[in-house]
Amino acid sequence: MMIAGPSQSIPELQTFWDKSRRRVEAELDRRLSAEGPESARLFAAMRHAVLAGGKRLRPILAIAAFESLNGHDEAIDSVAAALEMLHTYSLVHDDLPCMDDDDQRRGRPTVHVAFDEATAVLAGDALHALAFEILARSAPPEVIVIVAQAVGPTRMVGGQMADLAAEGQVPTEELVRRIHERKTGALIVASVTAGALLAGAGPGVVRLLESYAHPLGLAFQIVDDVLELTRDAGQLGKPVGSDLKHAKVTYPAAVGMDAARRKAGDLVHQAKQALQDYPGDAMTLQALADFIIDRDR
Amino acid sequence: MMIAGPSQSIPELQTFWDKSRRRVEAELDRRLSAEGPESARLFAAMRHAVLAGGKRLRPILAIAAFESLNGHDEAIDSVAAALEMLHTYSLVHDDLPCMDDDDQRRGRPTVHVAFDEATAVLAGDALHALAFEILARSAPPEVIVIVAQAVGPTRMVGGQMADLAAEGQVPTEELVRRIHERKTGALIVASVTAGALLAGAGPGVVRLLESYAHPLGLAFQIVDDVLELTRDAGQLGKPVGSDLKHAKVTYPAAVGMDAARRKAGDLVHQAKQALQDYPGDAMTLQALADFIIDRDR
Repeated sequence: MMIAGPSQSIPELQTFWDKSRRRVEAELDRRLSAEGPESARLFAAMRHAVLAGGKRLRPILAIAAFESLNGHDEAIDSVAAALEMLHTYSLVHDDLPCMDDDDQRRGRPTVHVAFDEATAVLAGDALHALAFEILARSAPPEVIVIVAQAVGPTRMVGGQMADLAAEGQVPTEELVRRIHERKTGALIVASVTAGALLAGAGPGVVRLLESYAHPLGLAFQIVDDVLELTRDAGQLGKPVGSDLKHAKVTYPAAVGMDAARRKAGDLVHQAKQALQDYPGDAMTLQALADFIIDRDR
Repeated sequence: MMIAGPSQSIPELQTFWDKSRRRVEAELDRRLSAEGPESARLFAAMRHAVLAGGKRLRPILAIAAFESLNGHDEAIDSVAAALEMLHTYSLVHDDLPCMDDDDQRRGRPTVHVAFDEATAVLAGDALHALAFEILARSAPPEVIVIVAQAVGPTRMVGGQMADLAAEGQVPTEELVRRIHERKTGALIVASVTAGALLAGAGPGVVRLLESYAHPLGLAFQIVDDVLELTRDAGQLGKPVGSDLKHAKVTYPAAVGMDAARRKAGDLVHQAKQALQDYPGDAMTLQALADFIIDRDR
């Protein structure tokens, strides 16, 4: 099982990450227990998707923003778990045969392979609904609005539409940037602001964190694009990965590998700069930005 | 285009229904306008699904419960529109090739036929998210919780799982009842209680309305099962409909056509009885219960 995380060169971040991930995974485990035999197969599929490892980046960002403002609200674990459920539901649907048609995810068979296609659609739908039930029970309305908008038609879902539509097109930097901002960036920004709002952040701090999270989310996805190519190049001896198989538009395809790496570095710098006048404790958020670039998976 | 509604024998109900439907459809039209060309195709698919007619039963029930308690809150139209979006998203996903594989819905090609499969999955996902954004902007948290639970893994989505799993099985009344209660009943009950809560109903009135909506929702689905068989018998000269094609477990299949009709009648009686001590104006709610039985589509 792949459990990615920060490198040991940032020991404090590793400790924070491990502790936060354990909390979130305990919460996910608790939330995804079937109430009876009636829903057993559906919950098994939801658990297969959610409890398969993964970096838990969105929960980690929410908790980091929350703790940076000295937040005290037990609801943070619930909100963090809901964010991971929303991210996972989108992966389950993206992997479907009619979308990216991927058989493997995090080293395991995808839900439609391990179960079946109908169960994968419904497990995604169930995670989507359950996430909003959890948010409605634990977060103020403004947090639910921000998260719902981030995964809605103009952001995450719209980004996936654009990603599919762009397959095979000649990628421009602008096209790739807009897809990344919507498909993955929006929920990353919402995770940071959700954590901050739960800690009682006012509009000024929220705007400041948006200026941090927006370049961070884009940098994360550019590094993902780069790793997808270089990892497969190392493993397979040739640059053939899922992105190439689907003729996905990626940052390296748009601007070249070196320029993509430079762009990611610039964005991380920009994210860290945004925290210069941060009224909270910016250390973990800064370390997270460095990790985005330094990670190897 | 099929626009079903109450028969002209209940003119007041027809007037209420038409007026409420116009309001809800105006709200849906407004909410489903793409902000720019980026999301145009996604919004076109969402509009294709939502603005194709339909009875609008769930919004009508929400508005009826709301008005029965003399509610004054402009948010009722938003909540009603969100309920219809959730219902429609479930239809779009149920129609997918990996589920019921239906080509037609409300006399028009289903979304995956008119667009494509990936767009149908994403249009459903987008309606799902947009519904919760609207609810979070217009309804108190307890309403969001009730609605999210109703469409979640133990209710609506779980009911669709059970429906698919039951295909080809020998249907018992208990099996069919549990599927109907979860797959369609839960959102019907939630629509009534959402409308009541928005009008300021307390727990006692909500419980009373649950005792009304629960048998009503089941009766509605039994009548749907009956109509599916008899309508096709009339049109095709033989009882072959979508339910039979998929070997769906239905009430008539479980207990026979006459017993199914009697059961629906008993349930409607039970629904109306539940309103005997209703503190609000029960007239429209009573008329709606009668309509459930008398409708011919």
